[in-house]
Amino acid sequence: MKTQYYTAATLDGFIATEDDSLEWLFPLGDIGATSYPAFIKDIGALAMGAHTYEWMLRHAIKPGTGDGEPWPYEQPAWVFTSRRLPPVPGADIRFVKGDVRPVHEEMAKAADGRNLWIVGGGDLAGQFHDAGLLDELIVQVASVTLGAGKPLLPRNITSPPLRLTSVRMFGPGFAELRYDLPVPTSGPHGEGR
Amino acid sequence: MKTQYYTAATLDGFIATEDDSLEWLFPLGDIGATSYPAFIKDIGALAMGAHTYEWMLRHAIKPGTGDGEPWPYEQPAWVFTSRRLPPVPGADIRFVKGDVRPVHEEMAKAADGRNLWIVGGGDLAGQFHDAGLLDELIVQVASVTLGAGKPLLPRNITSPPLRLTSVRMFGPGFAELRYDLPVPTSGPHGEGR
Repeated sequence: MKTQYYTAATLDGFIATEDDSLEWLFPLGDIGATSYPAFIKDIGALAMGAHTYEWMLRHAIKPGTGDGEPWPYEQPAWVFTSRRLPPVPGADIRFVKGDVRPVHEEMAKAADGRNLWIVGGGDLAGQFHDAGLLDELIVQVASVTLGAGKPLLPRNITSPPLRLTSVRMFGPGFAELRYDLPVPTSGPHGEGR
Repeated sequence: MKTQYYTAATLDGFIATEDDSLEWLFPLGDIGATSYPAFIKDIGALAMGAHTYEWMLRHAIKPGTGDGEPWPYEQPAWVFTSRRLPPVPGADIRFVKGDVRPVHEEMAKAADGRNLWIVGGGDLAGQFHDAGLLDELIVQVASVTLGAGKPLLPRNITSPPLRLTSVRMFGPGFAELRYDLPVPTSGPHGEGR
């Protein structure tokens, strides 16, 4: 079982604009033509932050409009939030807050040997890394720059560094980079925050 | 003849720390084992910003100390600066300021068909892009994150996007991504600055 942060990011290290837009992402290619279908098959549980969840509600699920898409995950999903957020009817969504470690334990139990996906955002992934719980980082580097936005992984991970394990090209729009993460050496919050 | 921005950057899009340190870069691997030797052979002229030049003076050339390295380039070098900076004895260095376009013309004449290298920083490369003069972006993506620092290319380049032309792995420390740049469509300074 691995805990994986799988996400698209711009070449300059952003996963969304400052106002959480992903409009830059969709023209670049079809997610079905990437590693996503193989990746999601091995996932047994997933976690995301409140902004990621709200983005999904607003842009995909659109609850109550009759115009939305179904919740895309069969796996149980943990949503980290300190606010009250609307659930999605029929979806296995568990709202939690605070320390990622007990949630990681619950996720691992539910996943029953399959992998755990940290969907985003960057700081939530960083919290799993701070706790020594993040094994792999898989980034679809999109062929754009934004100049500003929400950071991929707002942490200093230099000593030891990440370990690049593979590179792959998906047309002119995406480079996939896979990394193994080191175990943090400098306390629960890393250096340089 | 192509104008190329060739640089190392962190996975989160920084070319240096806030205080211009590259200490994170050197442990990752030997520059001689990357594409650099083949790249520099085809370069006929280069340009850099004042911070890049001062970094070289401080960390490599160390003029007057008797302890430094020789200036590493045979090609003529243009240094953009609005301040008075010390020259390096024996090196072909030309201090300039302002609009990149006339400098690009001079560089092209001197290069005589060979390529032009924009060494950095990110904003200088952005100015060449704004003027429609940047053809190619070659990034050695280093297997680290900094969380903050000097940006790779502080511009919004999304429509049209960059065009990924190749990916290559240099051990666990570097992924090389090559992009063709689009001609900017929204005026001399691009969008989203």
